[in-house]
Amino acid sequence: MKDRIKRFFLAEQDIPRKWYNIQADMVNKPMPPLNPATHKPLVASDLYPVFAEELCRQELNQTDRWIDIPDEVREMYKYYRPTPLVRAYGLEKALGTPAHIYFKNESVSPMGSHKLNSAIPQAYYCKQEGVTNVTTETGAGQWGASLAYAASLFGLEAAVYQVKISYEQKPYRRSIMQTFGAQVTPSPSMSTRAGKDILTACPNHQGSLGTAISEAIELATTTPNCKYTLGSVLSHVTLHQTVIGLEAEKQMAMAGEYPDVVIACFGGGSNFGGLAFPFMRNNISGERHTRFVAAEPASCPKLTRGEFRYDFGDEAGYTPLLPMFTLGHNFRPANIHAGGLRYHGAGVIVSQLLKDKMMEAVDIEQLESFEAGTLFARAEGIIPAPESCHAIAAAVREALVCKETGQEKVILFNLSGHGLIDMAAYDKYFSGDLVNYSLSPDEIKANLSELPEVD
Amino acid sequence: MKDRIKRFFLAEQDIPRKWYNIQADMVNKPMPPLNPATHKPLVASDLYPVFAEELCRQELNQTDRWIDIPDEVREMYKYYRPTPLVRAYGLEKALGTPAHIYFKNESVSPMGSHKLNSAIPQAYYCKQEGVTNVTTETGAGQWGASLAYAASLFGLEAAVYQVKISYEQKPYRRSIMQTFGAQVTPSPSMSTRAGKDILTACPNHQGSLGTAISEAIELATTTPNCKYTLGSVLSHVTLHQTVIGLEAEKQMAMAGEYPDVVIACFGGGSNFGGLAFPFMRNNISGERHTRFVAAEPASCPKLTRGEFRYDFGDEAGYTPLLPMFTLGHNFRPANIHAGGLRYHGAGVIVSQLLKDKMMEAVDIEQLESFEAGTLFARAEGIIPAPESCHAIAAAVREALVCKETGQEKVILFNLSGHGLIDMAAYDKYFSGDLVNYSLSPDEIKANLSELPEVD
Repeated sequence: MKDRIKRFFLAEQDIPRKWYNIQADMVNKPMPPLNPATHKPLVASDLYPVFAEELCRQELNQTDRWIDIPDEVREMYKYYRPTPLVRAYGLEKALGTPAHIYFKNESVSPMGSHKLNSAIPQAYYCKQEGVTNVTTETGAGQWGASLAYAASLFGLEAAVYQVKISYEQKPYRRSIMQTFGAQVTPSPSMSTRAGKDILTACPNHQGSLGTAISEAIELATTTPNCKYTLGSVLSHVTLHQTVIGLEAEKQMAMAGEYPDVVIACFGGGSNFGGLAFPFMRNNISGERHTRFVAAEPASCPKLTRGEFRYDFGDEAGYTPLLPMFTLGHNFRPANIHAGGLRYHGAGVIVSQLLKDKMMEAVDIEQLESFEAGTLFARAEGIIPAPESCHAIAAAVREALVCKETGQEKVILFNLSGHGLIDMAAYDKYFSGDLVNYSLSPDEIKANLSELPEVD
Repeated sequence: MKDRIKRFFLAEQDIPRKWYNIQADMVNKPMPPLNPATHKPLVASDLYPVFAEELCRQELNQTDRWIDIPDEVREMYKYYRPTPLVRAYGLEKALGTPAHIYFKNESVSPMGSHKLNSAIPQAYYCKQEGVTNVTTETGAGQWGASLAYAASLFGLEAAVYQVKISYEQKPYRRSIMQTFGAQVTPSPSMSTRAGKDILTACPNHQGSLGTAISEAIELATTTPNCKYTLGSVLSHVTLHQTVIGLEAEKQMAMAGEYPDVVIACFGGGSNFGGLAFPFMRNNISGERHTRFVAAEPASCPKLTRGEFRYDFGDEAGYTPLLPMFTLGHNFRPANIHAGGLRYHGAGVIVSQLLKDKMMEAVDIEQLESFEAGTLFARAEGIIPAPESCHAIAAAVREALVCKETGQEKVILFNLSGHGLIDMAAYDKYFSGDLVNYSLSPDEIKANLSELPEVD
């Protein structure tokens, strides 16, 4: 009988023992983050008040190719890792393509997405350094749920600021965080100076990642033994996510293939880099010539239509200045359902790699993403997260090109999460209530005009 | 470092090749189902108009110990099987018990529960026999989602009658079914004679499994090439679920242990029998003396407080008369959140085994179930379905006895599903809005009084 599905499994002992730090191999290193007051390059200790110290060192480490994964972190990874690599015969058949399509299934994590890969080490390092409380912000809720889970594994108290409109619209994600004992506050709130200021100026403010980040950082810096954590964008987060690609590399070898193109959806860059970077090191060494494609939403196109500038990581301008592709920190993305992709900037490593043409980017309209996600669900039986639908849509585009040309290309994409808690979005799609959001060149220019250009 | 978690994996080739039919080994076979009009024992062909013929034969098969799993079904099982067996070190530590606690994790199925184990073969046999359309009813939505998924895998059209109050309260499950292309109708509806009659008599009827079963059977018997399917209770459904126990048996051997007590939650009996029966065959043969504990809700206590009678499987009395522990087919269980356990009767095999003292049953109050589920979530990182919380509560009781006696007993329970789409129930629990439902002896007697006693 012809295989209908083929999954490639690794054993527990195959969980990677080191994360891959692509910064060490990059020909052009990322430019340094700058202190916004002095415009001097940041050093790790500048970040100590906010993040666990080891994370600050990882953030700026451009020399060590491999970073040891602590035993305790590997032990916690065993809750769901290694994750399967799947040959998507059903999707190939549905598309009638000669391409070989594979996906790495990160949706099998107990929280339903790849976010745990970094939440666990971030909670671990905090615990190691005597921290008792962690804070973060969450938009869609995937990161907040993962951090709440990781904090409970290590006995830390977690306080999560959830964007107010998400807090009200996504009560399931809030309940998940509460199940793990996290304190969840809709942001803006009256619990911080920043929140009070915002609410005084605008009593009906519905919240944004910008307000939530400000509140979480303020809580971290004003509470004893408390640190802030972030779920994407930063280099140490992407570092932790490389377990995805390191496992996938072994699993592709089990399948006897190597990807011609590697695809992931793109918000801040951590799931993209997590899958892509381990394969990209073989491009850097000249051994391979794989294409790497980041799939971003057309409504938030920092890679395809943004510009490379020094910009803040948050709306309020509290973070260091980061050298990145950005739409400007005041850019307000439309209210698409892929909440995890609604971010104005790209991480500094990916930004440098895009500048150096080591990777590509495509933008996907909301309706195309759900069309691809529904096709995938019916063919492969897993309902993808709205974010992951963007990766699937990009993979479908590649597979349809192969159908035209007759090429048997090997396509690998990351299924970063499942959509079981995002069914309201599918509901809207099926009832015809979802729309695309177009963006005029003027809208993009407006937010960028105040940022100085970079050589 | 001490293990924090240990998962036992099998390879794809370890997916069972045969289902285990405990009927062949039972000393006292289940009594026959009766034709309600003639009171004569049913033969398989009496069921052909409703179910796929092979399923009717499996239903009444009391002689073949092993039933071949078709290759195509095994191939589809590869989407998620074999599922992991997990040593619950975290839960043991949280309880301070010397017991060794294991759980079989059926929540990793793409639909989040064990229901797919039977949905796949039921859809397969329908397809094989030239059926083009399948129907079913669903309460909580787990079964309906699984059947919708299985139907889409085999290219069948699925029509699901979802209990109206569930259709309105659980829109996510409805959306999941629609994602797989199923037609979902709130029951009672105007699409069937039965539905029209009910709505004429009671225009605001909120629906029940009884109304939905009637509508689904009517659609199946009045539509060409259409069959009805059921998600629990019947013997062929439990047969398919034995893949759970057959895998668990191998995995317990990998762990070097054998369970002293095997526990599962109990609605109609399919997840319980699925885990328990393969182990129970070693009790029947005299090799082992494992205890088997079914955990039912205190609000629907057919095993602990019901009686063994011939009764209908549905409220309207359309099915054959089944010899079973029952609360009476007119029993209306309280609106607990473990919707999958709100059923008045037990499958005929389990009923006979309980009568013969081959197994035990305990009843669990709603609050105790959520308390145990929350403890488990924080200790093991998986949020359990409200149904599975009953199994966890029973396992916690056993583990606490071990704590008192100091015995290192081996406890195995089935995590039948995750609760990610049931977070509204946890929300209510955390906010103190959940209650227990007590049941007076008179209430139980009332529904049983009209059923004749069985020798």
